[in-house]
Amino acid sequence: MTARKPSPARGRARATVDALPDVHLEADTRGVELHRVGVRGLSLPIQVRVGKAAKATIGKFELGVFLSAEARGAHLSRLAEAVQARAGVWDEHAAISLCDELRATLGAKDASVRVEFPWFLAKRAPVSQARSALELRGEFSAHSFQELQGKPRSRLVSTTSVTVPVTTLCPCSQAISEAGAHNQRTLVRIQSVMGKLSLDELAAVAEEASSCELYPVLKRPDEKYVTERAWSRPRFVEDVVRELVVALAEHPKADAFNVSAESQESIHAHEAYAEASGVGPLFRR
Amino acid sequence: MTARKPSPARGRARATVDALPDVHLEADTRGVELHRVGVRGLSLPIQVRVGKAAKATIGKFELGVFLSAEARGAHLSRLAEAVQARAGVWDEHAAISLCDELRATLGAKDASVRVEFPWFLAKRAPVSQARSALELRGEFSAHSFQELQGKPRSRLVSTTSVTVPVTTLCPCSQAISEAGAHNQRTLVRIQSVMGKLSLDELAAVAEEASSCELYPVLKRPDEKYVTERAWSRPRFVEDVVRELVVALAEHPKADAFNVSAESQESIHAHEAYAEASGVGPLFRR
Amino acid sequence: MTARKPSPARGRARATVDALPDVHLEADTRGVELHRVGVRGLSLPIQVRVGKAAKATIGKFELGVFLSAEARGAHLSRLAEAVQARAGVWDEHAAISLCDELRATLGAKDASVRVEFPWFLAKRAPVSQARSALELRGEFSAHSFQELQGKPRSRLVSTTSVTVPVTTLCPCSQAISEAGAHNQRTLVRIQSVMGKLSLDELAAVAEEASSCELYPVLKRPDEKYVTERAWSRPRFVEDVVRELVVALAEHPKADAFNVSAESQESIHAHEAYAEASGVGPLFRR
Amino acid sequence: MTARKPSPARGRARATVDALPDVHLEADTRGVELHRVGVRGLSLPIQVRVGKAAKATIGKFELGVFLSAEARGAHLSRLAEAVQARAGVWDEHAAISLCDELRATLGAKDASVRVEFPWFLAKRAPVSQARSALELRGEFSAHSFQELQGKPRSRLVSTTSVTVPVTTLCPCSQAISEAGAHNQRTLVRIQSVMGKLSLDELAAVAEEASSCELYPVLKRPDEKYVTERAWSRPRFVEDVVRELVVALAEHPKADAFNVSAESQESIHAHEAYAEASGVGPLFRR
Repeated sequence: MTARKPSPARGRARATVDALPDVHLEADTRGVELHRVGVRGLSLPIQVRVGKAAKATIGKFELGVFLSAEARGAHLSRLAEAVQARAGVWDEHAAISLCDELRATLGAKDASVRVEFPWFLAKRAPVSQARSALELRGEFSAHSFQELQGKPRSRLVSTTSVTVPVTTLCPCSQAISEAGAHNQRTLVRIQSVMGKLSLDELAAVAEEASSCELYPVLKRPDEKYVTERAWSRPRFVEDVVRELVVALAEHPKADAFNVSAESQESIHAHEAYAEASGVGPLFRR
Repeated sequence: MTARKPSPARGRARATVDALPDVHLEADTRGVELHRVGVRGLSLPIQVRVGKAAKATIGKFELGVFLSAEARGAHLSRLAEAVQARAGVWDEHAAISLCDELRATLGAKDASVRVEFPWFLAKRAPVSQARSALELRGEFSAHSFQELQGKPRSRLVSTTSVTVPVTTLCPCSQAISEAGAHNQRTLVRIQSVMGKLSLDELAAVAEEASSCELYPVLKRPDEKYVTERAWSRPRFVEDVVRELVVALAEHPKADAFNVSAESQESIHAHEAYAEASGVGPLFRR
Repeated sequence: MTARKPSPARGRARATVDALPDVHLEADTRGVELHRVGVRGLSLPIQVRVGKAAKATIGKFELGVFLSAEARGAHLSRLAEAVQARAGVWDEHAAISLCDELRATLGAKDASVRVEFPWFLAKRAPVSQARSALELRGEFSAHSFQELQGKPRSRLVSTTSVTVPVTTLCPCSQAISEAGAHNQRTLVRIQSVMGKLSLDELAAVAEEASSCELYPVLKRPDEKYVTERAWSRPRFVEDVVRELVVALAEHPKADAFNVSAESQESIHAHEAYAEASGVGPLFRR
Repeated sequence: MTARKPSPARGRARATVDALPDVHLEADTRGVELHRVGVRGLSLPIQVRVGKAAKATIGKFELGVFLSAEARGAHLSRLAEAVQARAGVWDEHAAISLCDELRATLGAKDASVRVEFPWFLAKRAPVSQARSALELRGEFSAHSFQELQGKPRSRLVSTTSVTVPVTTLCPCSQAISEAGAHNQRTLVRIQSVMGKLSLDELAAVAEEASSCELYPVLKRPDEKYVTERAWSRPRFVEDVVRELVVALAEHPKADAFNVSAESQESIHAHEAYAEASGVGPLFRR
């Protein structure tokens, strides 16, 4: 991207930073620590790691730092600068690295970084093999924070998350009806905490836990296939979440995790949801 | 609602309006008419007419006026004042009346009023008779505008609209599959233009055009009923929209109308939609 | 609301609940507890307590229960039924009461209830005394959960929250510029945990912490007043949050609290935010 | 993107399209034409033309076709297929080209294509020259439709649109107050109809019409500059829209256009807006 040249008028307005008062540095006498001060809703074109590949997307960032009781304000422009200056491919480790940089740059004992973005899964329709790309959501985060209850050392938690749209078909409706069963789009979310699961590995776990995965392009033989597959795998949101827990508890790259499913019920105007947490082999080591 | 008393300090700040310059009244030399200037996103507790009843809800307003080329600005506070001052039950006629008032108050040759709100349909589950209230959306609008192409007279168009969530079950999926058929939540919208249909009459037309209506509370015998009813009435969004057109073309209270259906496809991550327009007996008279 | 009569055809479809299989009651062998299963996005017309008054509004509910490892599903229709059946005015105590009822009705060891709604503050413009109603957001919640780390007893936490739009004027911009200072709309949120603060008391604290409060209707003398008032009270989001902490730490009805401010920066396309927590006199007793 | 291999089980499910009934082709006897049937909310990674460059982004598509009264349904999978298969850089001409392809592929007399996406403007802070990327929105569309009033020939309209966040400072507040003036973030939208203006040319017009443009990164000397610049260029939304009309009416690449501005008022909780239309030199030729 080539930046537009500032006009000469802008050049004439140039001032030295030193000559201007810095209100943020004023001493604050209210004695109140702020556990986070920062910016959010800051969008940037980025690359994200999906398995071994790097994919272009748009990231929406939330960045924050701890502010001690003594300083009136945080230099928020430094947060925006740090993320704008950052090159390379985003993943959980990049979030940790920016988190460390923010602590250093702003002299803050704690910091947090979160970036949320769309990404795409290459799909082939189950029968016709028609190719298409399905939009999912992803998120990387890193948070450092002081232990509560007087324990002094800082701790860092990082996460990789996906949200995957799938189909669920209701086991109750199927069991009690003469024909048919209500089914609907359902959002499955997995948050992998301190684990080694990549975005595409998480997406595969999410799709496998559902009645059937979604495809942007389905020809009629494909539509027959997905209808029958969902029929053969009826699942409550409770079932989806338990399948997620069972799969992740055994997954060699899983540490701690939070999982949820939310179905846009086709017989109601509201959503049904289920949530659980668990730990995998890396946690138990 | 009792307003908080302004403090004495506020009283001392009182100034006469006449002493302050009124920038909005400055002459504008750019020669540009603005077809609408106004406010939107203004929320108020209101009552809306549903059949013969008045129901309490929260309305979100968009109000606007034509601004002639000569005046620099419109007095937007008068729009907010006019809607805040308005008592009584909202319907299409109230929108027309406020539209006329705005034209008079602001000396504008045109104006528009739109209010959008949630409202609730009393439902009884089809078998258990369990009572519940289903949230729908409603809208009243009135727009006056100058005819294009040199015809001088002003024209007013008013509308009453509903958006109703329903179920649709896919006829194609049902025809080609061994068992089951994908179905999903679908939003049906009817905009009645210059007609005499009330919100609840429009909602009844919308529900009848669908595979099955929705209920907030369904016990198991009800769930069996709605599953089987949807199975017996498979409908594409195209079918829903055509059923709407056929029903409204014969409805004695229908004038012109716009209709649409948008289904949150349970086998895709995107929506399918269909739209049409038509006229009823009042238009053809 | 009068419910529409079900048709005779519906009556004939009546079945006894006992004759239908209940899939939710099936034994589950996966051994996975779910900390929450429930419904969200369920809207209802309700009344909420604002000080001593009851105000009509629309509530959006999220309800959930703990599901033990043994049962396959939760009877989610009972959650929808329970909230639909509930009469009376909503406040933090009603959330606690419904939470207790859900635990009993579903035989769940834990439950949670959250209702979020718009409500309106009666305002009088500071000079002209023009009356208007400002939309705020409110929330009541109650959550029961088992203590972590092996402590067996259940604990209940309830909250009352408000989100209030205000103005903030930037102290840095004011200090460094020849004239003017950027200012913007800012959302202030206070979550009062286990305290005795009512919605309107929380809103008063939020407005007092800002550069200036907002008004739906302002005549020119009022606009002069609010511009000058904001100028005389420049505040970073950090300042707003600290003012909130200081005010609540001394407020006789405050127990624990979480506070935040998020400003829609007028010189950026992103938001600035600050967050803190604290305790009041009721906590320290 | 490498698609996952379908499992052998999927291969065994393969069926010939010809063997399955095609419900969409059934004759429809209701006699109702649908002016649009299609899909929306379909996201894809795409490239868009910004001046002479091609930029990677995520596009959200709405595609539709006219459906004649005789056919029961449209083959919506062909819309999704057509857009997934499309290579190359998106601009107004690509929208026209896909629109033509959809008409041919579905045998429809009319079609429409709309794609909306974020894109980024390279900025340098006015004094410090700090680099950053500002997120804007863009849209390309093409719509073919039959003339109303009996004129038989089809007509195609295509558009390029941008939405640009800027600052506006209120001239009234500035004129009546002892110090300061309320200002806020404002969204400026330009829809260029059948013109030759590129996304970045439209953005430059939008920014020039405002009190001041926005920057993701501003150091203190920059903040002084933008505060003072906004102070020196006070603008109502009415002024912004008139500046847009005046600039585009003279722009050699402008044909017809629609313009609007919506300000997130910092003294109210609602928005102020203004809208206008006009024509440029290409239209008048």
